[in-house]
Amino acid sequence: MNILLVNDDGIQAPGIRELYLAVKDLGDITIVAPDGERSAIGHGITLDKPMPVRTVTVSEHKTGLAVDGTPADCVKLALSEICPVKPDLVISGINLGSNTGLNVIYSGTVSGAAEAAFNHIPSFAVSLTTYNAPNWSPARRITRTLVEKFIKHPLSGRQVLNVNVPNVKEDSLIRGVLATEQGMAQWKENFDKRIDPKGRTYYWMDGRKLEMEEPETKDDTAVKNNYISITPLQFDLTAYNRLDEIKNWI
Amino acid sequence: MNILLVNDDGIQAPGIRELYLAVKDLGDITIVAPDGERSAIGHGITLDKPMPVRTVTVSEHKTGLAVDGTPADCVKLALSEICPVKPDLVISGINLGSNTGLNVIYSGTVSGAAEAAFNHIPSFAVSLTTYNAPNWSPARRITRTLVEKFIKHPLSGRQVLNVNVPNVKEDSLIRGVLATEQGMAQWKENFDKRIDPKGRTYYWMDGRKLEMEEPETKDDTAVKNNYISITPLQFDLTAYNRLDEIKNWI
Repeated sequence: MNILLVNDDGIQAPGIRELYLAVKDLGDITIVAPDGERSAIGHGITLDKPMPVRTVTVSEHKTGLAVDGTPADCVKLALSEICPVKPDLVISGINLGSNTGLNVIYSGTVSGAAEAAFNHIPSFAVSLTTYNAPNWSPARRITRTLVEKFIKHPLSGRQVLNVNVPNVKEDSLIRGVLATEQGMAQWKENFDKRIDPKGRTYYWMDGRKLEMEEPETKDDTAVKNNYISITPLQFDLTAYNRLDEIKNWI
Repeated sequence: MNILLVNDDGIQAPGIRELYLAVKDLGDITIVAPDGERSAIGHGITLDKPMPVRTVTVSEHKTGLAVDGTPADCVKLALSEICPVKPDLVISGINLGSNTGLNVIYSGTVSGAAEAAFNHIPSFAVSLTTYNAPNWSPARRITRTLVEKFIKHPLSGRQVLNVNVPNVKEDSLIRGVLATEQGMAQWKENFDKRIDPKGRTYYWMDGRKLEMEEPETKDDTAVKNNYISITPLQFDLTAYNRLDEIKNWI
């Protein structure tokens, strides 16, 4: 099996090394990832400037290609120029920070997986719901399990699985794996207005997650309740239930 | 009516001025847009650096706020800090180049409209299917018509309409307006591999649109056939028809 790895935290981030270590004996692994952090990049691509690349060490005896581009750029470049054969599977991650609810739309991690699906290659994105003190072990284990399942029973058609893993102190605290729906979990932004030394205005954006009441069938709640959440995604955004309303309205 | 305008071609691009001229007498207009081109930025947001802003002239007697950020940043900033009251409507565009099929996922223009919908404000994105010799008149007319319809009969719930307008030499060549579904129109990338003066490798990405056979009920075909295409979009990406398969598989 040929597997392509990508992420949005950058090729030197610990998560992609953990991802590599989780699957390295399951196939021939190619690593192509951004040369630095590209979080919250959405499905951006780079059309207006060149993309320098360089080979870097990801793990002992394993190099990857660092690209001055986005996760979607990396997958496009890998499929077009780098991979010796078309990959059987693309994995994006392991991301630090969850990608659930509406935040899926902003996620570079998910966009790496989506780009693979646009090219008819099954893929999944893996995120760990913490920014510090990560316990990689459950994320590595579910990643390995999913690859083994793909080898034995490939899913049909274009597939993007969005996997979110709770960060737990003890692996035994994981309560299981749930197939979930994308919820509406959302961040509320705050803008800090400042003045630069030349008297010009600028803003810093930060935010906090809004707490929402959603059932355990939704991604974010499943993870909060210590389940590993797996959401199948698709990228036809048509609001089919609105079509008749629009037809009558225009 | 309070209307917020945004785009992804940058606040100095002609399309946002045309958009302003189309609707300026229909409400109180606020303009907040990127300070330069942010095409193909997807739904990226700016978390890792500050966003300088400055006031610029968009049209005679009308200024707007130029933001060193993405379309989604602009809408977030406008709603949080700039708009005197919550807008009744957000319009993103007028973009040069179509946003149809899978390319909707990469579109900064659509992301500006989507960000509004995430904040429970109805919105639409307008794109004109050309990069040169634009005939703005049909795009201006449909924009104005849609705003007038919003005033008379607001649509229910969160709404994002993705409007694509064919570029025609004579306005009479427009055959009508169709409510469409997002198709699978896609670009095929090409990577040009080059070596910089210091011997390092870099790539330039370009691409061409793949011609696809799709019915006129799909966005791209409708526009190719000289219809104005209006696609209602939503942002729950859950592949509901896959959930049972995933439940059995994991």
